[in-house]
Amino acid sequence: MKTLVVIGHPELADSETQPFLKQVGKDWATFHELEAPFDIATEQQLIWQAERLILQFPLYWYSVPALMKQWLDEVFDEELLGPQHDRLVKKELGIVVSLGRPIREFQSGQRQAFTIDEYLRPLQGLALATKMKWLSPLVVSQFAYQSDTARQKLAVAYQQYLSLPQPVRFKDRVAWLTRQLATMQTNTKDTIAQQELQQLAALLSMKQEQLDDLNDNLRLVRETEGY
Amino acid sequence: MKTLVVIGHPELADSETQPFLKQVGKDWATFHELEAPFDIATEQQLIWQAERLILQFPLYWYSVPALMKQWLDEVFDEELLGPQHDRLVKKELGIVVSLGRPIREFQSGQRQAFTIDEYLRPLQGLALATKMKWLSPLVVSQFAYQSDTARQKLAVAYQQYLSLPQPVRFKDRVAWLTRQLATMQTNTKDTIAQQELQQLAALLSMKQEQLDDLNDNLRLVRETEGY
Repeated sequence: MKTLVVIGHPELADSETQPFLKQVGKDWATFHELEAPFDIATEQQLIWQAERLILQFPLYWYSVPALMKQWLDEVFDEELLGPQHDRLVKKELGIVVSLGRPIREFQSGQRQAFTIDEYLRPLQGLALATKMKWLSPLVVSQFAYQSDTARQKLAVAYQQYLSLPQPVRFKDRVAWLTRQLATMQTNTKDTIAQQELQQLAALLSMKQEQLDDLNDNLRLVRETEGY
Repeated sequence: MKTLVVIGHPELADSETQPFLKQVGKDWATFHELEAPFDIATEQQLIWQAERLILQFPLYWYSVPALMKQWLDEVFDEELLGPQHDRLVKKELGIVVSLGRPIREFQSGQRQAFTIDEYLRPLQGLALATKMKWLSPLVVSQFAYQSDTARQKLAVAYQQYLSLPQPVRFKDRVAWLTRQLATMQTNTKDTIAQQELQQLAALLSMKQEQLDDLNDNLRLVRETEGY
């Protein structure tokens, strides 16, 4: 999976979120930080080479910052899409959006009134018009206030968003974690850490087997009951 | 009603729609054509002076062009809104959006998949967050292909959108047309044109009286029937 993360942030130097995501995502994708003016041909080349295109930005007035809109307005032209508008077919369009307000405010009856999905309709429209597969957006809510644990969970969710088939299945997540544990075990020289990682991997494997058994039983019950 | 029309069009010189709207709207509003870079203080002064703020733009990838987004990102700051976010209270936010595709495509199951209302959620969110009254958008669909009659209708709808209380009532539209006919009658020196305008005004007035009568009858019927 060749993933290209396009970052549209007008004040990248002040961002806490973006360096974190870049650090944890660097082995999983190519990162491209937008800076105007754009060389249209180079930008289009980058997009054609990618299989999964991720637009990553802070939500400014409920949409992409002007810098990213400029990139979309200038780069997504007839040349990029092709005469039949089919040059981006089979590519995927993902969104990583960071919020300054809590995610719970984004629903009817709350302060932001509409959901993130509703506010992102223009980008979903872009995916439809260019025949790209739309991925459910990954929302980063108030990164500055997140605990270390929350950030670790975000790191895993982000790495999986960059690399796993979407929409993601639980089984794929577990397989992904198992592979990660194996790699960490190989890379560490600390024997105690190695043992701990081995134990974690064994635990994960056992839990997955139990889950498989439960799923088998559930299937049997369903068949017996005639569902 | 002090109406400010802010035009965000990156290629104004090539636009057919914008000069038309400016020509027919010039007596009804102040027109402000955006050009970057912006002097933030001047822009904010313009907004504070207006009672009705109209954002006028061609739809680019289902949202405002980058130029207008830049204006929103830079000008709509804490200074404009005030510490209590109440400096724009009682102002109205209207949208005049022009489309390169037919309006019928903007619905579920059609090519553009979502309605204009859905695509404009970010601007509606802006109105809510700044406590401005949101006006139903005025859509200009494929101006280049419009007949003269369609353009004349558009001119009237546009002038009314700039000047009448919203949402507009039928009675207000008729009163507005009557005033327009009276003004035209005063301004022309052609006696035949004067007579024709007078006849039109008389016809309009008669129709309005008939409508009032019908409404009275309808009310009586309803009361008798106990609705």
